[in-house]
Amino acid sequence: MQQRTQTTQGNDGLFAVGSPVTHWSVQTSNPVQYEIRACENLLDPENLTILEDAADGGRRRRFVVTDRVVDSLYGERIRAYFGHHDVEHRVLVLEDGETHKSMDAVLRVTAALDAFGVDRRREPVIAIGGGVLMDIVGFAASLYRRSTPFIRIPTTLIGLVDAGVGAKTGVNHNGHKNRLGTYFPADRTLLDRSFLATLDARHISNGLSEILKIALIKDARLFDLLEQHGADLLRTKLQSPASMGPTPADVPVDQRLAARGLHLDPATEVVERAIQGMLEELQPNLWEKVLERVVDYGHTFSPTIEMHALPELLHGEAVAVDMALTTVMAERRGLVSAYQRDRVLRVMERLGLPTWHPLCTSELLVEALHDTVRHRDGKQRLPLPVGIGSAVFVNDVTEAELGAAAEALGLVSSGAAR
Amino acid sequence: MQQRTQTTQGNDGLFAVGSPVTHWSVQTSNPVQYEIRACENLLDPENLTILEDAADGGRRRRFVVTDRVVDSLYGERIRAYFGHHDVEHRVLVLEDGETHKSMDAVLRVTAALDAFGVDRRREPVIAIGGGVLMDIVGFAASLYRRSTPFIRIPTTLIGLVDAGVGAKTGVNHNGHKNRLGTYFPADRTLLDRSFLATLDARHISNGLSEILKIALIKDARLFDLLEQHGADLLRTKLQSPASMGPTPADVPVDQRLAARGLHLDPATEVVERAIQGMLEELQPNLWEKVLERVVDYGHTFSPTIEMHALPELLHGEAVAVDMALTTVMAERRGLVSAYQRDRVLRVMERLGLPTWHPLCTSELLVEALHDTVRHRDGKQRLPLPVGIGSAVFVNDVTEAELGAAAEALGLVSSGAAR
Repeated sequence: MQQRTQTTQGNDGLFAVGSPVTHWSVQTSNPVQYEIRACENLLDPENLTILEDAADGGRRRRFVVTDRVVDSLYGERIRAYFGHHDVEHRVLVLEDGETHKSMDAVLRVTAALDAFGVDRRREPVIAIGGGVLMDIVGFAASLYRRSTPFIRIPTTLIGLVDAGVGAKTGVNHNGHKNRLGTYFPADRTLLDRSFLATLDARHISNGLSEILKIALIKDARLFDLLEQHGADLLRTKLQSPASMGPTPADVPVDQRLAARGLHLDPATEVVERAIQGMLEELQPNLWEKVLERVVDYGHTFSPTIEMHALPELLHGEAVAVDMALTTVMAERRGLVSAYQRDRVLRVMERLGLPTWHPLCTSELLVEALHDTVRHRDGKQRLPLPVGIGSAVFVNDVTEAELGAAAEALGLVSSGAAR
Repeated sequence: MQQRTQTTQGNDGLFAVGSPVTHWSVQTSNPVQYEIRACENLLDPENLTILEDAADGGRRRRFVVTDRVVDSLYGERIRAYFGHHDVEHRVLVLEDGETHKSMDAVLRVTAALDAFGVDRRREPVIAIGGGVLMDIVGFAASLYRRSTPFIRIPTTLIGLVDAGVGAKTGVNHNGHKNRLGTYFPADRTLLDRSFLATLDARHISNGLSEILKIALIKDARLFDLLEQHGADLLRTKLQSPASMGPTPADVPVDQRLAARGLHLDPATEVVERAIQGMLEELQPNLWEKVLERVVDYGHTFSPTIEMHALPELLHGEAVAVDMALTTVMAERRGLVSAYQRDRVLRVMERLGLPTWHPLCTSELLVEALHDTVRHRDGKQRLPLPVGIGSAVFVNDVTEAELGAAAEALGLVSSGAAR
């Protein structure tokens, strides 16, 4: 049947031939580049960072999406910023929270975008808010005219170190976490930690959970920092001492260190290591062609727990419960010592995170694993910690093991924190 | 502000340094490969083509989506095919036609897919139907778990030469044609021309319109074939004489020709050239980074005309009206001779396509151009034919020119055919 094969790369002499073409193979590649940048005073009218897009031409228009909480805290400054620069703008305000992370919200964004109208490539949509908002706006931008550029300005810690860093967009659907979505990174993510000053402690904890995840599976130094400074980070909301000012790039590292006599402050180092660790894992596997992902740690059982508990648990809290459970599983398998397990659980408590939840029943955990197995193409591919700062994938978890681990967790954890 | 830049490609010595990282740049690339294959007797139970996916394991399950018309014609054979091979399957039947090309239809597919459950990578969704169906199912597959493989089996001519060949998925939204969508080619498109035998003449014409587009902008030989054989192609529904059987690949081309003493039959050559021409344009620009696309010919005014006329005009008919209008514009600019213009209009009539529509008013054409300018990032980038088989892009079309061209078209065309 396959008489002649034509790969569409160079195409000579095709049509003179007497036998029919029966096969074309299209091979191409989509290059993707995006930027994450630490900034200060983003909403200061004198700061041009938000507007510094190339090829903007004379006329400037921006479509901005934020949520109700951010709007109440920063809405006036946001409008004043664009007003100051004479940028025609529309600020769309969405409801906040995981329960509103739905296709309806995405279609609200696309309809408002359609009403405002943007040129397809040079008028990026601007998302200012937490992880949920960025996932929704990124999803909408990826679908609108099959891709419209967007800029992320995270205002929460989980947005800064997790949702703002990767390429995934998405919404919940049919009772399943992030069941619909796309891979579509923002052109630029602008990180301004001063937004964190207006977060409550619970939302700081929420972000610290994803930072702890990176620590547990690949960065022992980051774990030490969390263990040592976790309570302080929570209290100070990761606000650092004043910026240390520019350093000439050509001064050798050790001289710079000597000249200053200091290391990074813990808040800065923790955020940096978390982002760096995340990007090291994401960049080679941005489209998840490989389904063994250490950054899926804490995300095996938590999607189902989170959706069942909605709106009780924040995302990072559900992830913490999953990490507590799998730390106990790892200890029972001899991958983690009892001492390491207890350190991990203690750090979670210090970070204000729950280590147990009544939904940790054998039945629900089995259901969760079943759905995750579909998501990981028929295998468990479950990351378990090995000591602190390393991980391994297993495929042989049984219902009995899940039940026993859940029971053991109930005994060693001090319970569902809040 | 930008003290140190870290590109996440190799990452040494990052954390020992005293100054904060202020910039990460992520650079990567998504390789994409897909296949289009001409086949025969796809639904013959002895033909394994539909099921020949690698890595399928023992258990076989398939989720199939089709439309009401295809189901009434082929539904029994489709179910019998999967039944014969002991494949657990669910056939979801959608309403047919452009008016049902909506986000609602996409969410019907994802909800049914969720209820059926598929492993993420090795159980491709199968779309059997026309262009509208393939756009909907491709969109749903691209969103479900952020990408689920799918296979296209087009049953219409426009599906075979256009919707089944490229990477675009999408639905209409807010009254705009394909306003939401993704770039997500099927892993495999299987072309079986025998499905065309059950199409009515109007749907053959619909597909011939997209073939004519390729002819006009890049393939004079294809135009000649349409001019010479168009009426026959319409009558025979592009059913070819029996397959010529396999040809040993190592026999030189001229010997094969000599041995047979024949060229391809016109139906085969027309379909091949249309697909080949389309792929030559798509492959280097699959994600439309370049917005000057000759395959956008006929797609400047037609999206708005089609949406306003809904459900009166089929997609290819709206494209034909756009091509008739722009052929007249090209003649008025001296890019096409009056003789060539008349040949083009005559071929359209021979293919059963309209060459005019009452919606071709100055007002509506201006509105259409305005929206297309946004879609082409602030410029018209309007492809106009140069003679037959070549094109040029212009950016200086005025309202006056549009009005004059519409009026001239009313005079030279024999009207809205049907």
